[in-house]
Amino acid sequence: MYDLLKGLRVVEGAAFVAAPTCALYLAQFGAEVIRFDNIGGGPDFRRWPLADNGASLYWEGLNKGKKSIAIDLARPEGREIAQRLAAAPGEDGGLFVTNFPVDGFLSYETLAKLRADLICVRVMGWGDGSQGMDYTINAALGLPQMTGPADDPRPVNHVLAAWDLLTGAYCAFSLVSALLARHRTGQGREIRAPLSDIAAATMANLGFTAETKLQGHQRPRMGNDIFGAFGRDFRTADGKTLMLLAITPKQWSKALDVLGLKGDVAALEAELGVSFATDEGLRFTHRARLYPLFEQAFARKTLAELAPAFDAGGVTWGTYQPLEAALDDPRLFKGNPLFEDVAQPSGLTYPVPGAPATIPQDQRLPVTPAPRLGQHTDEVLAEVLKLSSSEIARLHDAGVVA
Amino acid sequence: MYDLLKGLRVVEGAAFVAAPTCALYLAQFGAEVIRFDNIGGGPDFRRWPLADNGASLYWEGLNKGKKSIAIDLARPEGREIAQRLAAAPGEDGGLFVTNFPVDGFLSYETLAKLRADLICVRVMGWGDGSQGMDYTINAALGLPQMTGPADDPRPVNHVLAAWDLLTGAYCAFSLVSALLARHRTGQGREIRAPLSDIAAATMANLGFTAETKLQGHQRPRMGNDIFGAFGRDFRTADGKTLMLLAITPKQWSKALDVLGLKGDVAALEAELGVSFATDEGLRFTHRARLYPLFEQAFARKTLAELAPAFDAGGVTWGTYQPLEAALDDPRLFKGNPLFEDVAQPSGLTYPVPGAPATIPQDQRLPVTPAPRLGQHTDEVLAEVLKLSSSEIARLHDAGVVA
Repeated sequence: MYDLLKGLRVVEGAAFVAAPTCALYLAQFGAEVIRFDNIGGGPDFRRWPLADNGASLYWEGLNKGKKSIAIDLARPEGREIAQRLAAAPGEDGGLFVTNFPVDGFLSYETLAKLRADLICVRVMGWGDGSQGMDYTINAALGLPQMTGPADDPRPVNHVLAAWDLLTGAYCAFSLVSALLARHRTGQGREIRAPLSDIAAATMANLGFTAETKLQGHQRPRMGNDIFGAFGRDFRTADGKTLMLLAITPKQWSKALDVLGLKGDVAALEAELGVSFATDEGLRFTHRARLYPLFEQAFARKTLAELAPAFDAGGVTWGTYQPLEAALDDPRLFKGNPLFEDVAQPSGLTYPVPGAPATIPQDQRLPVTPAPRLGQHTDEVLAEVLKLSSSEIARLHDAGVVA
Repeated sequence: MYDLLKGLRVVEGAAFVAAPTCALYLAQFGAEVIRFDNIGGGPDFRRWPLADNGASLYWEGLNKGKKSIAIDLARPEGREIAQRLAAAPGEDGGLFVTNFPVDGFLSYETLAKLRADLICVRVMGWGDGSQGMDYTINAALGLPQMTGPADDPRPVNHVLAAWDLLTGAYCAFSLVSALLARHRTGQGREIRAPLSDIAAATMANLGFTAETKLQGHQRPRMGNDIFGAFGRDFRTADGKTLMLLAITPKQWSKALDVLGLKGDVAALEAELGVSFATDEGLRFTHRARLYPLFEQAFARKTLAELAPAFDAGGVTWGTYQPLEAALDDPRLFKGNPLFEDVAQPSGLTYPVPGAPATIPQDQRLPVTPAPRLGQHTDEVLAEVLKLSSSEIARLHDAGVVA
């Protein structure tokens, strides 16, 4: 938690990964984030993984530091409360993050009648408004057929919902950019961020689409080989699997040094009439000749021998480790100042991260847990919508809020 | 291209994916982005995929709409130019995006002597400053062992550099957030964004770490099954592979409707004593019983029969298609207003995307190509550093710039 965005009030009406991470990043930089959900929870409220008592570790992971109000969104009076929240007044309010449909009761047109300078960031599936999720959009991009061993034709979807995550961060960027523009011009706007467009643009940004157009077909599967450079997993004498990577000239020469491969590689270069030193593409082209040299070099040493030599020699490498080992890895989790032990709504206390960036000049503020569903219903109705306590009681009695 | 960030001047000294995409997003929202590189190009200047003439489609994809200045960064005079650029004056200048080391000649301390309110966003590998790239950090998180078929123990790194991409978007968000704070307080700051911390926080945000702590081990490989819900690839009667997904109650009931599986599933529910309708986790738990029903239903129909029925019924599904087919898919590339045919420095003209978000109220500005390396050297030296033409000529003659 940092306070860069102190004074912003963001309302989130959303579910799943993209829009909730957008608002999470805003909250971790000090914005007040009010998330509304249906009474009983939205479609992501019971999403796996679960604690033993059925509470969603996923939901509480994505909603840290937010306030929660529960509203019956099926009823007109509930919908009106959601609309008024999204468009609530305040200089750095009127900031709404959602994945509700473009033309529903939370359309920009509807909300802009309540607040003309509203900023709305809307996560969508397909750009045409049709149903699409990370998995179905990824399937349409060819990536599941580019992923995994060359000898297995089965599609491999990514386990990490990369398009959701990228869209969430891009939406946070879009929201603060639109606020900066509103400071300058007074104008609000709707920013629509379809997963499909973020994905299509990314495939182009990285050169995948131009490559496919040139070649006539997409990049083939190549197992764990790093495309266009030198890198792969290798096994040590004691059966450990390491990742070795050499893109830059320095990465390459250091790897050869430590593995004692300078002579062998020079002989191969002479035979092939190429120089690998400054052309990582040639290392990729001739990888079938290079791999046996590296396999033999790795097989001669144990991890315990290689690790300090790699580190001392500045080699770019890493071990494969399961997440349970990563939890004890001080480079990732153990003792990482990003994390604090926090009691979450599931009843469990475990390490929970604040903002993933670090600002050396600023002090980290405490990491705050996710809310219980509806924990801030009364507070939000009173402070944001200025409802009286009798009006709030009436809404509870009528089952419009909880 | 939109003009939300008009007036910002951002200097980029970076390579590879994360920091360049950060600055790309800023440029696509209207910031002026000046990228400096070593004369002859940085370590990413020849990165694959390549055009036939050796130009990097990757480099030109990531540097669209930026200005380029080429500097000999090995020489003190070149380094000083880079420092003065990073810390150049101007109300919405002093915005520097880099992946240079924390303590080198582009350290925050050094640059802040030139401009006290500098905002510097620094992409790092590992948080401790040691060498780490997307591939080696991903290996340390367990994901390559969670990805792919359960019957194959080989590690599967993602083809899409998800941590790089997420870090890039998060850095764009961080930079604009820091600028909002500077507008308020006048203070600059350094924001350090290590891939390792972005990755560790994300694994926690999504519940992976809490799950692993509870279970004692990470999630096992499960091929293409969607964790905690119902979803997988299925084959049609004509041998096409589709992705079907049912997380929400609506997605589930619509899929059963269209596939004619209501009766079979009700019988299975009765046998097991469960109800799948509102509990996606139960669908996952009992997926081995559900899959045969779906496999048979898919095998009875062709894609041509299923597709319109799925679309009419609102089912969440998608075909697997290779990227060459996606290029003709109007939902992704063909006719998508994000894309324009642009002549790039490689000499090729192909569809190039602007900002991946869409703002209905604003007009899209033209998509601009990547620069040739050093295309704006003289312009930047004259306009930003106010050097005279004779001084610029001297720098060229001395080989300090190109």
